[in-house]
Amino acid sequence: MKLRSLRERELISAVRKEFSGKKRNLILGIGDDAAVIRSTSKSLLLTTDLLIEDVHFTASFHPPYYLGRKALNVNLSDIAAMGGRPRFALLGLALRAGTELDYVKKFLMGFKAAAGESQTELIGGDISASAKITISVTVIGEGDHFIRRSGAKPGDSIFVSGCLGDAAAGLDLLKKGFELGKNKKAAALLRAFLDPVPQTELGLTLSTHRAATAMIDLSDGLSVDLLHLCEESRVGADVHLEKLPLSPELRLFEKKPENFALHGGEDYQLLFTVDPRNLGFIEKLQKKYGIHLIGKMRRGQGLSLVDEKGKKRPLEIKGFEHLVS
Amino acid sequence: MKLRSLRERELISAVRKEFSGKKRNLILGIGDDAAVIRSTSKSLLLTTDLLIEDVHFTASFHPPYYLGRKALNVNLSDIAAMGGRPRFALLGLALRAGTELDYVKKFLMGFKAAAGESQTELIGGDISASAKITISVTVIGEGDHFIRRSGAKPGDSIFVSGCLGDAAAGLDLLKKGFELGKNKKAAALLRAFLDPVPQTELGLTLSTHRAATAMIDLSDGLSVDLLHLCEESRVGADVHLEKLPLSPELRLFEKKPENFALHGGEDYQLLFTVDPRNLGFIEKLQKKYGIHLIGKMRRGQGLSLVDEKGKKRPLEIKGFEHLVS
Repeated sequence: MKLRSLRERELISAVRKEFSGKKRNLILGIGDDAAVIRSTSKSLLLTTDLLIEDVHFTASFHPPYYLGRKALNVNLSDIAAMGGRPRFALLGLALRAGTELDYVKKFLMGFKAAAGESQTELIGGDISASAKITISVTVIGEGDHFIRRSGAKPGDSIFVSGCLGDAAAGLDLLKKGFELGKNKKAAALLRAFLDPVPQTELGLTLSTHRAATAMIDLSDGLSVDLLHLCEESRVGADVHLEKLPLSPELRLFEKKPENFALHGGEDYQLLFTVDPRNLGFIEKLQKKYGIHLIGKMRRGQGLSLVDEKGKKRPLEIKGFEHLVS
Repeated sequence: MKLRSLRERELISAVRKEFSGKKRNLILGIGDDAAVIRSTSKSLLLTTDLLIEDVHFTASFHPPYYLGRKALNVNLSDIAAMGGRPRFALLGLALRAGTELDYVKKFLMGFKAAAGESQTELIGGDISASAKITISVTVIGEGDHFIRRSGAKPGDSIFVSGCLGDAAAGLDLLKKGFELGKNKKAAALLRAFLDPVPQTELGLTLSTHRAATAMIDLSDGLSVDLLHLCEESRVGADVHLEKLPLSPELRLFEKKPENFALHGGEDYQLLFTVDPRNLGFIEKLQKKYGIHLIGKMRRGQGLSLVDEKGKKRPLEIKGFEHLVS
């Protein structure tokens, strides 16, 4: 047997051994032409993402363990943004010839850890070769009620979970040579980029209580993602500059922290809108989930930035460039 | 808005317009954080595949329309190999900077044509940049009964649909400069590689009538895929050399057609095993689906090749190298 096929089969065997857990409603997992799951009475959520070396991540500063976690977690973030519960995952992995088995093992350990934390089961996938490490993850979730991007109304309050811009600042520092473990003061920023945490529990709470009118996860940056939500909902939005949640670390390391908060991507926090009647419920969640009010939906279209003096100007829409030059 | 984000959004809009069909049990399609489908009483099949430029296809000789068809069809082949019916698809697409919009349109037209033929609905995906065109497709199918790789028993007959080795011969000729439309005598071989047809109806018929004990689709070549089936079923197999179905075109263009039939990949035909009691049913299907008996399962392990004189020797297992050098 030639090397390529042999290594593929070895890898698939290793993955199969590592991920052989039995899960409720799983009929057939890794190892056949397709995985089989039993239907339940709930609706199913489906999302997929590609992560490509030198586009979405840099192998030299993204430890494989964290890369494995992130590959799954960015998809779990999409499920969280619908208010669903993740259940199953498929993993497509293309590796450079000569990739160390140890690298693959660490990647899989990270993927497995994130799967364990979210009770998501890896049930199938595909392994092949490529010039750049390429990762495709599909996640299947479920739920009874979903929060779309299109339900926001004028007068709804805009909230985000967590702090904004930390991941983009982390990437900025990694490019400058900062390393996790070495630069302790920057650790929170580096970790925000290398190991983002999906807001699954918050998403579920908001959907269970019908507490949000619209929701999206922050992957491309606040300005771009809020615009998506506004366009789908056919409304405009006012964002209050002084209300942007900025972490002490972001203020410490970046001269223009607001720009990172407005346009930095990959925070994988949730952005959602709330009808005035539900503000009381959101208040109760605020401490537990670190939720911040940042503005209000309005009639019209486009985004406005309101400064400390109440002065309004158009908010520039600037997509986060990830690693693409 | 920067170019990358703009083009991504333009593309997503174009895809959304093109694929906005309503399908039974689809609650929410392209355009949100995840797609939503309604559960049915049937079980769900899930499969995913990566297609990467210069690994799985060569952009210079794979017209984008056929690439779009193939990207979906190779996944439909996995669903066919389980005996399921395809329903929904997710598409992850990463494009080189500077890819012509016309190229993307043709790719999507091909994808759409294959989706229409199989009544599969595109419900979501992901678009990004990359140095090599990268395609990840996930297909969701359904069914009541599935045919695994693991059910073959000693004494079962081994069948394949269609002819073997045509796709590998097609690739061989494409590498030598043959072109679809120019080299008419080779058209069937070139098309076998560029535009394989998933055997959905045959797979469904076999599963509905519980007529196959095990099944797999031929993507890596007969020797590798039959070995997979044998290992999962814990049996061995005898393949009869003179029974290999070789097309007239394969005999015309290749000096060692048997090698292409034994080890050539990407035919996306079905390989399945049949209990003696069901041979009558299979006989009735033989003409309609071009099914060929090629050998028999036996006790033990490994594959044997039986020549014209009844002499047996071990069948070498040789993985199809696709385009990887």
